[in-house]
Amino acid sequence: MSNTPTGRAALSHLDESGQVRMVDVGGKADTRRSAIAEGRVRMGAGAYQLLSAQANAKGEVLNTARVAGVLAAKRCAELIPLCHTLPLSFVGIEFFPDDATHSIVITTTCRSDYKTGVEMEAMMACSVAALTIYDMCKAADKGIVLEHIRLRYKSGGKSGEWHND
Amino acid sequence: MSNTPTGRAALSHLDESGQVRMVDVGGKADTRRSAIAEGRVRMGAGAYQLLSAQANAKGEVLNTARVAGVLAAKRCAELIPLCHTLPLSFVGIEFFPDDATHSIVITTTCRSDYKTGVEMEAMMACSVAALTIYDMCKAADKGIVLEHIRLRYKSGGKSGEWHND
Amino acid sequence: MSNTPTGRAALSHLDESGQVRMVDVGGKADTRRSAIAEGRVRMGAGAYQLLSAQANAKGEVLNTARVAGVLAAKRCAELIPLCHTLPLSFVGIEFFPDDATHSIVITTTCRSDYKTGVEMEAMMACSVAALTIYDMCKAADKGIVLEHIRLRYKSGGKSGEWHND
Amino acid sequence: MSNTPTGRAALSHLDESGQVRMVDVGGKADTRRSAIAEGRVRMGAGAYQLLSAQANAKGEVLNTARVAGVLAAKRCAELIPLCHTLPLSFVGIEFFPDDATHSIVITTTCRSDYKTGVEMEAMMACSVAALTIYDMCKAADKGIVLEHIRLRYKSGGKSGEWHND
Amino acid sequence: MSNTPTGRAALSHLDESGQVRMVDVGGKADTRRSAIAEGRVRMGAGAYQLLSAQANAKGEVLNTARVAGVLAAKRCAELIPLCHTLPLSFVGIEFFPDDATHSIVITTTCRSDYKTGVEMEAMMACSVAALTIYDMCKAADKGIVLEHIRLRYKSGGKSGEWHND
Amino acid sequence: MSNTPTGRAALSHLDESGQVRMVDVGGKADTRRSAIAEGRVRMGAGAYQLLSAQANAKGEVLNTARVAGVLAAKRCAELIPLCHTLPLSFVGIEFFPDDATHSIVITTTCRSDYKTGVEMEAMMACSVAALTIYDMCKAADKGIVLEHIRLRYKSGGKSGEWHND
Repeated sequence: MSNTPTGRAALSHLDESGQVRMVDVGGKADTRRSAIAEGRVRMGAGAYQLLSAQANAKGEVLNTARVAGVLAAKRCAELIPLCHTLPLSFVGIEFFPDDATHSIVITTTCRSDYKTGVEMEAMMACSVAALTIYDMCKAADKGIVLEHIRLRYKSGGKSGEWHND
Repeated sequence: MSNTPTGRAALSHLDESGQVRMVDVGGKADTRRSAIAEGRVRMGAGAYQLLSAQANAKGEVLNTARVAGVLAAKRCAELIPLCHTLPLSFVGIEFFPDDATHSIVITTTCRSDYKTGVEMEAMMACSVAALTIYDMCKAADKGIVLEHIRLRYKSGGKSGEWHND
Repeated sequence: MSNTPTGRAALSHLDESGQVRMVDVGGKADTRRSAIAEGRVRMGAGAYQLLSAQANAKGEVLNTARVAGVLAAKRCAELIPLCHTLPLSFVGIEFFPDDATHSIVITTTCRSDYKTGVEMEAMMACSVAALTIYDMCKAADKGIVLEHIRLRYKSGGKSGEWHND
Repeated sequence: MSNTPTGRAALSHLDESGQVRMVDVGGKADTRRSAIAEGRVRMGAGAYQLLSAQANAKGEVLNTARVAGVLAAKRCAELIPLCHTLPLSFVGIEFFPDDATHSIVITTTCRSDYKTGVEMEAMMACSVAALTIYDMCKAADKGIVLEHIRLRYKSGGKSGEWHND
Repeated sequence: MSNTPTGRAALSHLDESGQVRMVDVGGKADTRRSAIAEGRVRMGAGAYQLLSAQANAKGEVLNTARVAGVLAAKRCAELIPLCHTLPLSFVGIEFFPDDATHSIVITTTCRSDYKTGVEMEAMMACSVAALTIYDMCKAADKGIVLEHIRLRYKSGGKSGEWHND
Repeated sequence: MSNTPTGRAALSHLDESGQVRMVDVGGKADTRRSAIAEGRVRMGAGAYQLLSAQANAKGEVLNTARVAGVLAAKRCAELIPLCHTLPLSFVGIEFFPDDATHSIVITTTCRSDYKTGVEMEAMMACSVAALTIYDMCKAADKGIVLEHIRLRYKSGGKSGEWHND
């Protein structure tokens, strides 16, 4: 949460008259783009135990969430109005159980060789994977929380690398 | 984060052999269902100021996020594998700016007269509205965080009312 | 183009604060709903002749447009932000060639037993059928025009029958 | 409405036997493509006044229509059977109120660097934006008409520039 | 493959003039509908061994196919032009490895309380699950075959039970 | 059904830990890709006669199936979890009636200039075209079978040409 610009142009999806617009990427060259997003699904001890105790079942829940996240990444531009449709060359989703906080940490990676970045695709994959875990565990705990979904890394394009640690 | 059951049945999307399945709602009666979800989009001071300073522009950004959230609620079952397709009678999305934390708080309400709840639809609307705000402000602040997306309230069905305050 | 009300409530998709919202149909009963829309695709003499001269080919073009229109009616709520998802019991599309004006007149009928009307579904079916004819004939005439797409009839619900002749 | 060819090949979506087919663009090079479409939503005086009188509300209605139009442009190939899926580099939608005729004129611009044109995407954006205005104003006037949706301009590809004034 | 009627009405999706139409289900009552479809994915010994040898991996492949099949059942009416959109109360998919023929047998069950049957939903789920297995194993064997996809059982509606053994 | 490899890497959609993943095509160059799939819809004598007897009706049924197949090819990556979104340059679908077996043989061809193959798109087009024929003829024969859907040919990419005769 930093480097906030000062001009209006900073909200690049608004034109001079303050109306939404898709950014024109027609003049840009294809470069290798990548983005990593991260989020966390935190649940009660009981639900976490249920999820963890059964090796097999856990695999099914997390595999289902992974599949849902990958499919959502590919459909990101259908859901986020001003995103560009783009050909993803890779979507990867990993889950890291964190016993201390009864959480599943989700890391999503998207890549494309295109004119615009894939941040939204990574964020979308992370959110939908998290929502799918919520859906499959909500019978055990309706109070599950999706926490701290954010961009961790991006590379490619004019602005180059960006880290958020 | 409470009332976590102890049996395996608690993960209702897994059958006896631990494989995913859609819950059969065929035997259930239609009741009035509603759900409220809430989340927060927290950004840096600069991005928040840009968003807030321009009454008009702010309207455009938040209206775009609202439209995206409503559309996503209607398509929830396409994205979350084991959700049932259902006819939503209402989707409402409200935004509350919180100057103290440079955040936009999002509240989403879904209703249906159907055999199963609309929690996921409310959670999906909230997540996609939040992602749309991220998308439209990310040129000003890539470090924007989606925080604390969770269910606030549900009613209808066998389990009746549920609050999370 | 008549019976225009005078209060703000007339724009039913705006709430008291002027923000868009989905109309809540939760309190409404299911009734038999139907709607008929009509439009016209007008083209140059040459393109019209090409389309008409070949019995077989004409069938292919119009059948393709019919299929596209039916599919679009079913997906109306994905495209029109504040439309309700609803189960259509019938979609029918008819084409009437009008030699005098080199036009194809399109009539679409939608029906549902539901809480809200199917005007938008009929209008969407008509528009997408018209666009499909445009697409398939545009190599012969880029200047083809979609004309006078409008609702012809609706029935069902509190407001009952409505004609536009 | 002019330059209508005389051979059957003119309906490029039909093959020699008169059956529909997707045109093979495999041999074509990427060029900068653009297309502008235009249409008009004409309503009664009362509905037009309602739409115009409230600066804020008008913004919400038109912004909602703009978002719907942009999303529809990106999904054009899902709806128009023989359209190619293509990566749009830009979609822009503008609204011009015309007090004299109680109309909103809609202009849509699409661009892509691809092997085939974006006429259908511009026409689709225009139609769905118009339908969304209809949907949001139909409570005030069911007789609203979508008029004269047509291509205004295209450039790129072998056939180069084309105007329709 | 039996009871073939003799009149034209037998192709219920064609009207009197031989044009496609959606069957009007407006007059029908909701009944409990169910359908079971079955198909088979047959592969070479090597690919089958790869799939079978790794308990874990096999689970991932088949779970991915199951998730894809469930999602496809819910979207059947988007893909099959004259299918009605309907609310599925249940979708279940099971896999049975058949070592003798190096095949995975797929059984899909769909249920709905609605005015029309769910045969197509079961057939679609089966086909897409089979295609997903093909996709995930094709690096090991491009010659994998989808065999004998057919309806096994249906119940509900006027025609009652139907078996195909 | 041949050349089955022996290592685990053969199931390219599983990573080292046996979890599903999208194959990274980021490093690959665009080449001309094509794929041909084939399948068969076999029905009873009565249904086949109905389909064949009416020149016009048959055209409508098969045209509808062709349109459905083309649309499904374009949406393949939405349905098959680990498929890449890609721009198809061509989709073609042909039907060959086989009187001896009361079957319609379906051949589908897909082409793209891209980094990965179009086998799944051709298989998907074939399956959905077959399912559409089933849907339109099932009133005459519920026992219709989809048979032997498989890849016939592929070219392009590192592995070059592949035939299955």
